[in-house]
Amino acid sequence: MMHDLKHLLAVARGDEPADLLFRGGRVVNVLAGEIHEADLVVSGGTIVALDLEHRQRAARAVVDVSGRLLCPGFVDAHMHIESTLLAPERFAWEAARRGTAIVIADPHEIANVLGLEGVRYMLAATEGLPLSIYMMAPSCVPATHMETAGASLDASDIAALLADYPERVPGLGEVMNFPGVIHGDDEILDKLSAAAGRVIDGHAPFLSGSGLDAYILAGPSSDHESTTLTEAREKLRKGMQVLLRQGTAEHNLQELAPLVTPQNAHRFAFASDDRHPPDLAANGHVDHCLRLAVASGIDPVLAVQMATLHPCRHYGLHRRGALAPGWRADVVIVDDLESFVISGVYLEGTALDEADFASRATPPASTMHLDPDEVSPDSFRVPAPAESSAMRVLGVVPGQIVTEARQLPPTIEAGLVVADPGRDLAKLAVLDRHTGSGRIGLGFIQGLGVVAGALASTVAHDSHNLIVAGVDDEDMALAARQAVRQGGGFVIAGRGEVLAKLSLSIAGLMSDASLAELLRANEDLATAWRAIARADAPPDPFMTLSFMALPVIPELKLTDQGLVDVTAFRHTGMWVERNLK
Amino acid sequence: MMHDLKHLLAVARGDEPADLLFRGGRVVNVLAGEIHEADLVVSGGTIVALDLEHRQRAARAVVDVSGRLLCPGFVDAHMHIESTLLAPERFAWEAARRGTAIVIADPHEIANVLGLEGVRYMLAATEGLPLSIYMMAPSCVPATHMETAGASLDASDIAALLADYPERVPGLGEVMNFPGVIHGDDEILDKLSAAAGRVIDGHAPFLSGSGLDAYILAGPSSDHESTTLTEAREKLRKGMQVLLRQGTAEHNLQELAPLVTPQNAHRFAFASDDRHPPDLAANGHVDHCLRLAVASGIDPVLAVQMATLHPCRHYGLHRRGALAPGWRADVVIVDDLESFVISGVYLEGTALDEADFASRATPPASTMHLDPDEVSPDSFRVPAPAESSAMRVLGVVPGQIVTEARQLPPTIEAGLVVADPGRDLAKLAVLDRHTGSGRIGLGFIQGLGVVAGALASTVAHDSHNLIVAGVDDEDMALAARQAVRQGGGFVIAGRGEVLAKLSLSIAGLMSDASLAELLRANEDLATAWRAIARADAPPDPFMTLSFMALPVIPELKLTDQGLVDVTAFRHTGMWVERNLK
Repeated sequence: MMHDLKHLLAVARGDEPADLLFRGGRVVNVLAGEIHEADLVVSGGTIVALDLEHRQRAARAVVDVSGRLLCPGFVDAHMHIESTLLAPERFAWEAARRGTAIVIADPHEIANVLGLEGVRYMLAATEGLPLSIYMMAPSCVPATHMETAGASLDASDIAALLADYPERVPGLGEVMNFPGVIHGDDEILDKLSAAAGRVIDGHAPFLSGSGLDAYILAGPSSDHESTTLTEAREKLRKGMQVLLRQGTAEHNLQELAPLVTPQNAHRFAFASDDRHPPDLAANGHVDHCLRLAVASGIDPVLAVQMATLHPCRHYGLHRRGALAPGWRADVVIVDDLESFVISGVYLEGTALDEADFASRATPPASTMHLDPDEVSPDSFRVPAPAESSAMRVLGVVPGQIVTEARQLPPTIEAGLVVADPGRDLAKLAVLDRHTGSGRIGLGFIQGLGVVAGALASTVAHDSHNLIVAGVDDEDMALAARQAVRQGGGFVIAGRGEVLAKLSLSIAGLMSDASLAELLRANEDLATAWRAIARADAPPDPFMTLSFMALPVIPELKLTDQGLVDVTAFRHTGMWVERNLK
Repeated sequence: MMHDLKHLLAVARGDEPADLLFRGGRVVNVLAGEIHEADLVVSGGTIVALDLEHRQRAARAVVDVSGRLLCPGFVDAHMHIESTLLAPERFAWEAARRGTAIVIADPHEIANVLGLEGVRYMLAATEGLPLSIYMMAPSCVPATHMETAGASLDASDIAALLADYPERVPGLGEVMNFPGVIHGDDEILDKLSAAAGRVIDGHAPFLSGSGLDAYILAGPSSDHESTTLTEAREKLRKGMQVLLRQGTAEHNLQELAPLVTPQNAHRFAFASDDRHPPDLAANGHVDHCLRLAVASGIDPVLAVQMATLHPCRHYGLHRRGALAPGWRADVVIVDDLESFVISGVYLEGTALDEADFASRATPPASTMHLDPDEVSPDSFRVPAPAESSAMRVLGVVPGQIVTEARQLPPTIEAGLVVADPGRDLAKLAVLDRHTGSGRIGLGFIQGLGVVAGALASTVAHDSHNLIVAGVDDEDMALAARQAVRQGGGFVIAGRGEVLAKLSLSIAGLMSDASLAELLRANEDLATAWRAIARADAPPDPFMTLSFMALPVIPELKLTDQGLVDVTAFRHTGMWVERNLK
């Protein structure tokens, strides 16, 4: 260590040759808030000199960056890797190619399936990668007690993560249970207490006034859920680092951009939150946020500060996020600060090489803890009610993750309640895939657009049970069994055949395929979907399905334990009781 | 703790009464970079709500701040308390009255006298005060090996301080030995290594180019020594937090102010470094820096950010330096952001009360380790040289701490070299006060302005031995003996009498008097000085004297071990050898 430092000092002085010299470029200096010419001298993965005088010096490699700009590596301040469907190291490669050097990930999804084992897998799979992935300790596993999760994390688990990975777990992941915080529930306060002195990420959609005061008081110091200027301004004023989110579903960046001023830019950062494979491939990662930010009128140097230095400061990452002596040599070469077209990425002083992104860990064994042979068409039978009643139905709201709690007359055939494609009414089922209980919750959904066959998925927030929708019990059983046998993932079945599938064998959430392979599988699924769907159906049924089992988003949801009236925060039956006294 | 949090949450929600409510003011919001109306709700020393809606709520005390501005408490990012001559708790009181809430002190001076014991005393004396005083671990004790210090601190001592006071010692104090760092000397690298991962303060006057790269690479992340825009700009670009210094002797703030922009203000802070009692009393503390900054054209909100949030971020102080829920309630009420006239200060939610600034520790015993009875006029005798030679003389340069190495013919009387008021030539002596060795270094000084009697001081950087100057050996002995008997401090003697004195009984550096008492003593000393000095003498002879024993500042200095040729960095004799072969 000290020997290394002595060598680096000698390189800085010019007494020994550098590993790498970036010559002739202009540096986006996020510390000085300006752009200026300088040569960057790199050794041992560290910037050893910011040479303003362009001294002649020996270097093993010289990169001519004349006419180009050098940025620090970009930072995604909050995201769930699982949403990319990529194995963590595959995601890291795709992000790094797009200029990302640091990711603050919340492995909340895999934690709901595998608990600590899942978080430790994510850490192991990304240990030592050129791109640095930090993992926040998930704070809300399980999300509720109205569903069967694969695991739970309590305050002692969080303390263990923080203690075991002091360099890689900066703090507590987004604290979604904001009502619990505001009202001082012991369980969540224990978790906050376990993370005292570390960074605590917030999640406070629509929260304002004294509720927001109380929430922030208790510890959370960031938020990525603002959707309006008014909401974000209050959070900014009250001390939250405001993460401008640009996810695949949630596009908040441009709406919030006018809030950024030179005087407060240090309180902002970018977050992709949930980014799906086609979005990542087509639009990019933090580079996409930068393009949008500049297009929205944010000064380019401020935008780069928000993508680099400022999140590193927030998350306490020492000497990361700027190009200066002693800081890590994460260098992104761009043509300009508008297109952010990337012509080179160096992480820790080394040009990107896909071979350096090999997996570091063995993926966990299959998490499909249910017997496919026990899933049959009969599993999905819904007997007609004894007397004529209205049926509670999840009503899909296009483009949103909320549902409407509709009350509709059932369609009954041969004593069974069945799907009714004419009314865009499909059967919905959620099967416990964690405990082997055989538990299955049944219900109906309107507006999904499926008119033939069935589809199954193991991506179903937050417990990620096996969710199946369809108009035909045979195809529902077929899709479900295939999903189990392939270790989880997406399946589309129709007319007794599996039409398309994508295995997500890592916890039922992530694939071991490349992004290119994922995109092809996605195309296959889209084709199959068109074959079983109405013309006006939502284009991505798996995304819609993924929120139908999430019992914290209003109004009506379905878990393996049955329907949930989210507004009342309790289970409810399928049938509306009339004449209540 | 959790019980406390539950109570604070209830207050934030409005379910329980607050301790304190600031109603009707405008908040200088350093997070949002703007000024806006809000009520501040305080409980348990913490801000529990930033109420933008002015809700009706119960509070035990309401402070009407209509028409006024609320700022977070101010931060001095680097200073030596010893230079104020005040005991630490007395200084804290004077600083707090001027709006200061946080001080990052470097107890370098007392460490040179008392080592770890001195640092621990400074920590104990300020433990639990309403104003938070952090202490950096002094990095360069002793400064050189050409003088006799009272103590030394090695890497293990620094590691002990960091380990023993994790909450109060943020890191390593200003690393003045920058040549050692650049060239990789083991001793200083060991100290940097002991502070790895903590904040390391720099001190790099005039350093630039590859030397500055190497220095920063090794760890130092701040600098308060810049005197020109060019120098400060390079340090800013290379990653240093630039501390705009406004000390009593060094006025750098206004020169450097044009470097601050909204894009880089987060990389700045203010530092008073060395501030003497009359300056503190007349001009103030960080409030003075704020006035100067705004007068120099820095936007007032940026100036307040630089005085509050930004240094707290740099030194890793959690939830300090802003007015937001969960942050410490250090509130300064000002009339405007130009005069910064302070109409109220609340630290940790409590109005200032001098009783809360009582001493927490017993001052150390006398540090005058020399026998006054062994100091006599004969101690100061300088025999004439055997043959006619030129004499090396410290030449005072008005207003600067450097000296010129002059070569002058001696004045000889009765076989002894004597002072010569006609040439403004006085005798100078430095007595070891640390080890009882009886060692005394003798020399001559030109330009101090003393023409009768003598003066003695125990404030003599960096080892703070007893320094005596005068034109009369009897008065020199008298002044020296009085300095010893009073435990250190300043003495002026003339015509066989002590004319004025100030006891600095705490390590020979600090008084136990109040600021008002110090100012009166200062007046007495000034009067006495005029009685023994030329009309054109420097007004503050003790300040001039305090740098005459500092063997790291060119060209010629005197320690208890004799004259030092600083340029050659070695001891030298009083007499110039002629005809060297």
